[in-house]
Amino acid sequence: MPLVLAGFGHVGRAFGSLLLDKEVTLRFRYGLKLCLQAILNSDGGLCSSARSGLDRVIDIGTKPLAAYPNWRPGLQPQDVLGKINPGVFVECTPSDIQTGEPGLGDIRTALKTGWHVVTANKGPLVVDFQGLRNLARRNHVSLKYSAATAAALPTLDMALYSLAGTEVLSIEGILNGTSNYILTRIGEGTGYAAALKEAQEKGIAEHDPKLDVEGWDTAAKLLLIGNSVLGLGLKLRDIAVEGITRIPPELPARAKQEGKAVKLIGYLTRAGSHWRAGVSPRAIDRSHPLFGVVGTNKGISFTTDTMGSVTATGGKSDPRGAAAALLKDIIHIFARVQ
Amino acid sequence: MPLVLAGFGHVGRAFGSLLLDKEVTLRFRYGLKLCLQAILNSDGGLCSSARSGLDRVIDIGTKPLAAYPNWRPGLQPQDVLGKINPGVFVECTPSDIQTGEPGLGDIRTALKTGWHVVTANKGPLVVDFQGLRNLARRNHVSLKYSAATAAALPTLDMALYSLAGTEVLSIEGILNGTSNYILTRIGEGTGYAAALKEAQEKGIAEHDPKLDVEGWDTAAKLLLIGNSVLGLGLKLRDIAVEGITRIPPELPARAKQEGKAVKLIGYLTRAGSHWRAGVSPRAIDRSHPLFGVVGTNKGISFTTDTMGSVTATGGKSDPRGAAAALLKDIIHIFARVQ
Repeated sequence: MPLVLAGFGHVGRAFGSLLLDKEVTLRFRYGLKLCLQAILNSDGGLCSSARSGLDRVIDIGTKPLAAYPNWRPGLQPQDVLGKINPGVFVECTPSDIQTGEPGLGDIRTALKTGWHVVTANKGPLVVDFQGLRNLARRNHVSLKYSAATAAALPTLDMALYSLAGTEVLSIEGILNGTSNYILTRIGEGTGYAAALKEAQEKGIAEHDPKLDVEGWDTAAKLLLIGNSVLGLGLKLRDIAVEGITRIPPELPARAKQEGKAVKLIGYLTRAGSHWRAGVSPRAIDRSHPLFGVVGTNKGISFTTDTMGSVTATGGKSDPRGAAAALLKDIIHIFARVQ
Repeated sequence: MPLVLAGFGHVGRAFGSLLLDKEVTLRFRYGLKLCLQAILNSDGGLCSSARSGLDRVIDIGTKPLAAYPNWRPGLQPQDVLGKINPGVFVECTPSDIQTGEPGLGDIRTALKTGWHVVTANKGPLVVDFQGLRNLARRNHVSLKYSAATAAALPTLDMALYSLAGTEVLSIEGILNGTSNYILTRIGEGTGYAAALKEAQEKGIAEHDPKLDVEGWDTAAKLLLIGNSVLGLGLKLRDIAVEGITRIPPELPARAKQEGKAVKLIGYLTRAGSHWRAGVSPRAIDRSHPLFGVVGTNKGISFTTDTMGSVTATGGKSDPRGAAAALLKDIIHIFARVQ
């Protein structure tokens, strides 16, 4: 099964290295032989024959792609996708939730030329969820994005597979590890600015933490979950987004005194005949299934008609966790599990 | 798709009623039309033509099967299974983890005659896990038992689907709602005897609570999970089982003082080249992902190589929750999810 990998940052590299680590598991547990035939970044790429594959390239770790002898500057996904027998296009370029690019155009090209797509990139789906789903359906291929909806935490799996046959009545999630880490530290008595600085020093928060702390990362994941599970057709503007930057300083301490904890909750709840979608900081108490989700951990809780409330928590937030979610999606496309 | 239902106690009745409630969802979301063609209990059964089905029977609630005009005393699954086009045999008879009967013989008959089997009954699988799995494989049919492994809590789904591609390094679960309820009440200051009596009065504990409080129900579920997920080939005798009946009275109070809580944990952990399987009460602290699982709730936590620790909690423990798990298994047999 041919693979083309676009994006060779932390997640792309982790995916390449995971492919090597899991070769035997894939072959013997799932009957899958994946062959990485092209790796692309924004400047160009490497391309191999069907027989050899590029898996070994990744072994070398942090060496830039351009340093390899068969480097082709300017090589783009569209140069490759039409020329190889379609397999899976693995998309790991940086996420832009305003334009969806560069992933959006490449994913469209891949779907149109008969490639399955698995992506860790929220941008393209946030911008054109329905268009991409329709394109995949028309071309009889899969479009999967577990890695874009909280990575190793099972969110879509839980709703669509483990809760199959139920009606989901509401969803609440702690979907962003960075803001949860900062809130946890604030709950322990650290101020917002100091907690943010600490998170940045530890590599948990980005230099520009806006997307995480202002709630947009949570909102983007919520959009993907709401549209996939509930068919809501949400756009980003339909979600009421409030981040953690304006929490009154006295709130976390008061919450703690009352045995509560402040979390940044993404929620989808029914209000009569329509759904309300939002992201906001909330003080939740001990009986809440997400109360114990601390630090960079994430969690999601579904209320259903027949199975009651079911919650998933944990799952690595690092590039390897995201890579493992990409690989899981590929397994689900081809292998019958159980 | 023809269904035959064996066992018409709480779970069997809840399943019948769920079939009615979910007719539209099954048809339009999953393209499934299920037709209940026979319902059997230990004394006999009802059987219908392929066209009409028996779904409407269940509407009537608690009326005994024998009160219906087409009641056939002495009717057994083997009288029915060979005579109808094979579909799904739904097994909900009482669980006997020593003999596996009456479910074991009936499940064997069903698999041999080409029926898929979904069961809420641990007994047959505890007694002959490998034999039944082989029989299903040889006859190219599915054998599914989500409802027998903690019902609406996704245990097998989580491990086999959501964690596909990972190596599971250890498993810990709170798999029995009754003992967890009693332990929660003990943690709140109630004595063991009073907590058990209260659980019995509330219908949470059975009149004979042995299987629950002595850990055998947890052990049976752990066996199914270990054999399915890790391929361990466990027998009940391979599991070191300790229940909650001999917890030193001072332990829960001491645990509470230390910020811990006592839970009955079923565990599967690696010890060098082999696995240790056991059930025992343990004081776990706040950082443990199962710490917040209180009352009749259940939970399961998997430690993996690539996704870190992933935990599922919640899921209704009542007959409707078990029925929903049976229905989910049927959906997984026939419908492609996502």
